[in-house]
Amino acid sequence: MIITISREFGSGGRELGKRLAEILGIAYYDQEIIAGIAQRSGLAEEYVNSIIEKRPVTYYPITIGQTLTAAFTPQLDFSLKAYIEQSNIIKELASKSDCVIIGRGADYILREYNSFNIFVYADMDSRLQRCRQRAPENEQLSDARMKARIKAIDNDRGRYYQFFTNRKWGEKENYTLCINTSKTVIKDIAIPVSGLLKSMSHTLSGK
Amino acid sequence: MIITISREFGSGGRELGKRLAEILGIAYYDQEIIAGIAQRSGLAEEYVNSIIEKRPVTYYPITIGQTLTAAFTPQLDFSLKAYIEQSNIIKELASKSDCVIIGRGADYILREYNSFNIFVYADMDSRLQRCRQRAPENEQLSDARMKARIKAIDNDRGRYYQFFTNRKWGEKENYTLCINTSKTVIKDIAIPVSGLLKSMSHTLSGK
Repeated sequence: MIITISREFGSGGRELGKRLAEILGIAYYDQEIIAGIAQRSGLAEEYVNSIIEKRPVTYYPITIGQTLTAAFTPQLDFSLKAYIEQSNIIKELASKSDCVIIGRGADYILREYNSFNIFVYADMDSRLQRCRQRAPENEQLSDARMKARIKAIDNDRGRYYQFFTNRKWGEKENYTLCINTSKTVIKDIAIPVSGLLKSMSHTLSGK
Repeated sequence: MIITISREFGSGGRELGKRLAEILGIAYYDQEIIAGIAQRSGLAEEYVNSIIEKRPVTYYPITIGQTLTAAFTPQLDFSLKAYIEQSNIIKELASKSDCVIIGRGADYILREYNSFNIFVYADMDSRLQRCRQRAPENEQLSDARMKARIKAIDNDRGRYYQFFTNRKWGEKENYTLCINTSKTVIKDIAIPVSGLLKSMSHTLSGK
């Protein structure tokens, strides 16, 4: 079972993905990890191999992603070379074992892999609330500034997706399931979502 | 729990709604029933009252809807009067008991009712396949004609919805859950979907 998660910033999509990986006992790849691997692949091939050669059995801690993030700029990130490397890595990871992949247009990259593609979204109020809950103590952004930040991040995601896929980000036709998490506690829905995904792994023609 | 189901023709949305009502043990209102009630309300108010005064405990058989359908034309159906009557009836039904309501822009009509709004869609191939499966033996439409029919029905639904709501039909922001049933057996997903809906009935602020 290959699951890709695309999500609006603050919608809880990453948490949902992480929980799905835990529940299903499959690998978890976060966007920064994958982007980081792709970026570094030219520089330290051995490092990449050490990650992708292993058949992953548990999810990677989210902190690995965060330490990698600082190392590259959006300019680099957008380069075609990185995208191609990243695509190859995502395909290799998906070929190796069941997994959850967050972001990076994985739904498009894995379009031949029969993946479950989930889009997670929410209204602005609950996204603001989630961002506040996970913000560091010393971060005191106004609602207006927080909102602007959320929109900016989603614009980047949309542009990145459209640039590389020529599809519109978040269009439901490209997803198996679109979940509005506006009034939802992610922890509560993770098990039911995993159950729903399992029930969807039958095909019409197979019955 | 109020559940509205909007769906592309041939996506299996009606079957999903009917099964959800059965699983959850709540009322089931199909589009023709509601439209029929609205249409008739001027002529036979007692009939309408006899339906809406009762607190329904099980779903109505789908065949009731089909016998009513023939009685009215799209022209009548589109009239504002019918829409207003229908809106009132849908609100009364939703106030009376938990229920599943199929179609009729109920997601918009019940926007103050904290309803779960589901949009069911699928790719054209599986919609064609579903339509073939449920078509009468003597109906021999070509794929091209069947496809044209599916598109025409969805166009009508989209126009009806947009006319009365000023929203775009099928835009995920208006729904709690959008389910792509392209490779899915409806019978298999009904219980998991009902579980997911239950898990979503918590609010962020409530935790």
